Amino acid sequence: MDFALSEEQSAIFDMARAFGQEHIAPHARTWEAAGTIPKALWPEVGALGFGGLYVSEESGGAGLSRLDATLVFEALSMACPSVAAFLSIHNMCARMLDSFGSDDLKARYMPQVLSMETVLSYCLTEPGSGSDAAALKTRAARTNEGYVLNGTKAFISGGGYSDAYVVMVRTGEDGPKGVSTVIVEDGAKGLTFGGLEDKMGWRSQPTRQVQFDDCLVSADNLVGEEGKGFTYAMKGLDGGRLNIAACSLGAAQQALDMTLAYMGERKAFGKPIDQFQALQFRLADMEIELQAARTFLRQAAWKLDQGAPDATKFCAMAKKFVTEAGSRIVNQCLQLHGGYGYLADYGIEKLVRDLRVHEILEGTNEIMRVIVARQMLADR
Amino acid sequence: MDFALSEEQSAIFDMARAFGQEHIAPHARTWEAAGTIPKALWPEVGALGFGGLYVSEESGGAGLSRLDATLVFEALSMACPSVAAFLSIHNMCARMLDSFGSDDLKARYMPQVLSMETVLSYCLTEPGSGSDAAALKTRAARTNEGYVLNGTKAFISGGGYSDAYVVMVRTGEDGPKGVSTVIVEDGAKGLTFGGLEDKMGWRSQPTRQVQFDDCLVSADNLVGEEGKGFTYAMKGLDGGRLNIAACSLGAAQQALDMTLAYMGERKAFGKPIDQFQALQFRLADMEIELQAARTFLRQAAWKLDQGAPDATKFCAMAKKFVTEAGSRIVNQCLQLHGGYGYLADYGIEKLVRDLRVHEILEGTNEIMRVIVARQMLADR
Amino acid sequence: MDFALSEEQSAIFDMARAFGQEHIAPHARTWEAAGTIPKALWPEVGALGFGGLYVSEESGGAGLSRLDATLVFEALSMACPSVAAFLSIHNMCARMLDSFGSDDLKARYMPQVLSMETVLSYCLTEPGSGSDAAALKTRAARTNEGYVLNGTKAFISGGGYSDAYVVMVRTGEDGPKGVSTVIVEDGAKGLTFGGLEDKMGWRSQPTRQVQFDDCLVSADNLVGEEGKGFTYAMKGLDGGRLNIAACSLGAAQQALDMTLAYMGERKAFGKPIDQFQALQFRLADMEIELQAARTFLRQAAWKLDQGAPDATKFCAMAKKFVTEAGSRIVNQCLQLHGGYGYLADYGIEKLVRDLRVHEILEGTNEIMRVIVARQMLADR
Amino acid sequence: MDFALSEEQSAIFDMARAFGQEHIAPHARTWEAAGTIPKALWPEVGALGFGGLYVSEESGGAGLSRLDATLVFEALSMACPSVAAFLSIHNMCARMLDSFGSDDLKARYMPQVLSMETVLSYCLTEPGSGSDAAALKTRAARTNEGYVLNGTKAFISGGGYSDAYVVMVRTGEDGPKGVSTVIVEDGAKGLTFGGLEDKMGWRSQPTRQVQFDDCLVSADNLVGEEGKGFTYAMKGLDGGRLNIAACSLGAAQQALDMTLAYMGERKAFGKPIDQFQALQFRLADMEIELQAARTFLRQAAWKLDQGAPDATKFCAMAKKFVTEAGSRIVNQCLQLHGGYGYLADYGIEKLVRDLRVHEILEGTNEIMRVIVARQMLADR
Repeated sequence: MDFALSEEQSAIFDMARAFGQEHIAPHARTWEAAGTIPKALWPEVGALGFGGLYVSEESGGAGLSRLDATLVFEALSMACPSVAAFLSIHNMCARMLDSFGSDDLKARYMPQVLSMETVLSYCLTEPGSGSDAAALKTRAARTNEGYVLNGTKAFISGGGYSDAYVVMVRTGEDGPKGVSTVIVEDGAKGLTFGGLEDKMGWRSQPTRQVQFDDCLVSADNLVGEEGKGFTYAMKGLDGGRLNIAACSLGAAQQALDMTLAYMGERKAFGKPIDQFQALQFRLADMEIELQAARTFLRQAAWKLDQGAPDATKFCAMAKKFVTEAGSRIVNQCLQLHGGYGYLADYGIEKLVRDLRVHEILEGTNEIMRVIVARQMLADR
Repeated sequence: MDFALSEEQSAIFDMARAFGQEHIAPHARTWEAAGTIPKALWPEVGALGFGGLYVSEESGGAGLSRLDATLVFEALSMACPSVAAFLSIHNMCARMLDSFGSDDLKARYMPQVLSMETVLSYCLTEPGSGSDAAALKTRAARTNEGYVLNGTKAFISGGGYSDAYVVMVRTGEDGPKGVSTVIVEDGAKGLTFGGLEDKMGWRSQPTRQVQFDDCLVSADNLVGEEGKGFTYAMKGLDGGRLNIAACSLGAAQQALDMTLAYMGERKAFGKPIDQFQALQFRLADMEIELQAARTFLRQAAWKLDQGAPDATKFCAMAKKFVTEAGSRIVNQCLQLHGGYGYLADYGIEKLVRDLRVHEILEGTNEIMRVIVARQMLADR
Repeated sequence: MDFALSEEQSAIFDMARAFGQEHIAPHARTWEAAGTIPKALWPEVGALGFGGLYVSEESGGAGLSRLDATLVFEALSMACPSVAAFLSIHNMCARMLDSFGSDDLKARYMPQVLSMETVLSYCLTEPGSGSDAAALKTRAARTNEGYVLNGTKAFISGGGYSDAYVVMVRTGEDGPKGVSTVIVEDGAKGLTFGGLEDKMGWRSQPTRQVQFDDCLVSADNLVGEEGKGFTYAMKGLDGGRLNIAACSLGAAQQALDMTLAYMGERKAFGKPIDQFQALQFRLADMEIELQAARTFLRQAAWKLDQGAPDATKFCAMAKKFVTEAGSRIVNQCLQLHGGYGYLADYGIEKLVRDLRVHEILEGTNEIMRVIVARQMLADR
Repeated sequence: MDFALSEEQSAIFDMARAFGQEHIAPHARTWEAAGTIPKALWPEVGALGFGGLYVSEESGGAGLSRLDATLVFEALSMACPSVAAFLSIHNMCARMLDSFGSDDLKARYMPQVLSMETVLSYCLTEPGSGSDAAALKTRAARTNEGYVLNGTKAFISGGGYSDAYVVMVRTGEDGPKGVSTVIVEDGAKGLTFGGLEDKMGWRSQPTRQVQFDDCLVSADNLVGEEGKGFTYAMKGLDGGRLNIAACSLGAAQQALDMTLAYMGERKAFGKPIDQFQALQFRLADMEIELQAARTFLRQAAWKLDQGAPDATKFCAMAKKFVTEAGSRIVNQCLQLHGGYGYLADYGIEKLVRDLRVHEILEGTNEIMRVIVARQMLADR
């Protein structure tokens, strides 16, 4: 066993962290207030190779491992989990394109995807289908001119903001085998958006419903084969879960660092509050949970990289463990800041709000438990 | 023992609940967005007798018990904890005036306080003194013309909004025995306010620093005796803790009711999600904690009403128990709403944000533990 | 509302506590080692009126309320939860006899039951039916001579020790409506016992399987009506759950008292360990949970006494809350005793072992959640 | 990073597990009842190289890494944590001898230590000094004939059973710098033992006080240098903490395996209880915590092997995390067994009792938090 990052991995982490601290952190609260991330940020991110972190080198991507990618998201999330998580979604889409798209499709989209001139959104969830994703109802009827889409996608990060949408649609029977994946570009006729969602956190990410009303899409925009879309969507999720967990991890580390610094400065009853034993125990408890979370996440990523048969289970376990640990830690950090933790200025309460959704999306933590339990029974 | 509310108590609860549902709930999100509560609301509240809930009847107040008052706050908080909690602060001040103020002072202020034409804020905390409240530094120098105040109060709910401020100031030596209480009216010369605080929740309450810069206050505005202000401030806190806990309780009940309704309607995998056993267990866990919290809170209020020697300990215990239970419950309710819980429209995430500060203010829950442990050792 | 015990209730508590401290506590560890409670104890207990705590006064019982009875069990459990819980079982049986037995049956058994010359055991659970109690298979075939019983009861406290057994048997169809209740006296032909069970705790209670092999019982020994036995058994459970919870409460209080005393004497790093803030916080957390548990339990008992429609739900909630709180507290008390807590001499580890089963029996805490959730959905 | 065990490591684990299942598991409950482990077991253990797992190969030991050793303890603990933990203590002593003992001392003791003809006990704790180990009072006065020991050691696993004792004694000033380490053989004049301690678990390990009453020990039996004994004792603790955590891990895995099997067989309400979703979620929660614990432990062991500067902190973190996770898991497994979990026959309740002390010894988990917090503040 070897628990050390390689020099290259440390360099990737450091680069991402430095970029985040310089280009994202100073603006995180402003972007949150504005409810959007400047489009101009993304080509800078793309220039670092972060537009296709685990797109293959043959396709022009960074060809990083999943483990490497978690380092990027952990590091960026120290600046802002909302921005980091948004990038994860783009990367999930990019990987789907790379893994399953035809050469033609890749030729048309990949260069701009990698440079992030084209930002991608992932459209799976619908108003009536969350955890039961295979129950999706958005129809894509095959006609001579292509696919005609009708239906609504909900909770779409980047809805009305992104340049293209990777959409899971029903082209066949009910259930997972009737689902296909198509790319819909912004500006397509019949593509409209709901109002901007007012969310607890992730507020710099514009979220809207994405609505298809006889929206015509070229048949060439099918990703891979008809009827395999659900499989594609699910394959992306293992990595998506790692990334979302990495975002919780980085933000929790940031909060803990800030809290440790704050407690050395803040005084009560004549001494710095880091001298109160009951509060020290809380620091220790957070550190222990955070470090356990970090190692567990990296193990899951390593398993996915190795193609281990239990990789899906470990990704689900890590997603559940790390996102819950992350939320507990930032919430405790808020408490240790006292009243100041409740003020936006200190940046802690934003982390509580941002991380909260990590327990819900990319499969709720309840679904993670279902996945794990099912596998345990099957393995018995 | 008797665990039933009297008919009169039930009537008080019902009246407060009905008022809240009609006059507050429909506007709660709007007021949050506006960052303020319309001043016009308060006279309506005052007309119900809620401007001086436990001000004595001789003074024109409602003369309710502390237990009765918790019913009001629980009921109002089902509409909006931010509005309900703001009212608690006014009542804490009104009681101080009633208990310790001279007849003259009461004559001058009480009628408007009761009608809520005059809304009061409580000014104890300073930027450098939170948990260690007795370390406050705002000075009030006695001169021929009255008291000249210099210093800054922090986290003041109603700062720059209220009509008068009940301010704990240092008139003497260091420590608790050098503290006095004075009333400062809005518009006083030398009274200014910091910028509007951007907070995680309680956003409809305008919160600002309250600054005194050679602010002259009439000597008649001293509440009670010089040097007793800290005692007065602390006496108010037992009841304040009950009220804040009641606000957590009501909001948690509201969230649980909403969640129960939602789970009956929301379907996944072909059935309402309230049919999934793992989620039913969570409902049960929440109900158990909520009901335990309610009874524990009422016991503490009853002890305060009885003047029980362990009333302060029970108020501290209830504040800790109920506010933590409340936060856990609303957070779990958010989770059970899935992605919808994260959207402002559903009203759950606001409760998570609003209740969060109840674990911090009126004495942090860490200070509650200090109070309880100290008493345990003393009683041994 | 009134949260005070009456003088009479305080007197009952004090009497039970004094009796326990004098007659039980000094022997608790000896009886545990011996694996039995001296039969001679019970007539002394009976002489206090504890053999029929809530048997009606007309029947010669103490006619106490359920709330009163919880005081007795709380107080006795401060001496030994195993002995106290055993008495609860006898009382559950006595009440069934009083509520549902014919005058003849009462005349034959009640005097000795009340004096505790006849100790009763409750026989519901079978090896294959725990939580699903209505699936019981022990048959009672009606013949001219009476009932002929065949089958096995499991986990019977007092099996092979008690003087008579109140046995739930199947006289009719499958399911709850085919169950009846009969009394089987020790010494009956065809009545045998399994080996003494080796248990984690409750070791002074002899526990054995109770086996019926063509065991003939007089038809007069039927309690109440045929087919109603399951209802009788369930009715006893509400009160049984209160009592078991009361046993957890008393033992946890005892453990906390002992820990508080120990921590004042034990020194480390130059001071008593009760001076370490992190440990003080644990004391506070335990006290808060314990006091909340006490009030919640008494409320549930009061509801049962009042015949409140939600009494069963509140009994289930209290059983879950109090037994889990009790276990957490005694376990934490063990930790605060350090290595000494692990030694039998200190009496703490016995409490951990004894209380553990309270989370399982009288309906597991999982079944409690089922009851609560079901009621919540029904009330919606 | 590499999260896979090497083939050799897997082989070590398998060998230890097979040995444990064959030679220990079938007897674990018998030995517990007997209160001792047959001396004849140890040479068999020694023959596998487990008498000096991380004694250097030059000294004749197995020369395994700390990580390798944790695999042995995890595997053996699946058979019986009490036996496995006892072996850990012997190994801790063996390593002290190897690392710090003179060539002469090694020559005299090491061969029998490695073959386990000589079983070693570790004597640090005293009745009055647990967490504050450096306050130990057992004196060793230097005389012409050697050291004369006076004092008492408490909680000594193997007291009155082992063949030699590695004893931390005070040869100089107060505090850690006045402590030395000497080996005292069984049979030494002035060496006596207290009564057998009656403990909650670890019952197959005989535990007694070890008393020195003018006990003369040859000066050659000094380990290393005078005044360095406390350092030696502490150095052993990092590894000891890993081992104890590994024992919790293995036992928890065993309990979970047993529970998974049981739940597939046990039926309620017409189906196997592993089909109830609420119970499946508990399985998932246990698996997640267990797997996180395993990886975290191995990381800590790897850090100790690497001589990482933060190894002590990671060992402390792993000890806290894994032993608490282990206890929670076995306790939950007991619950999922229902009443059967409470019976000794099922082997689960023994694991709850055995693992409980892992949260206390080798430094309580409170001391682990102190270590972690102190390091966090130092690193800031």
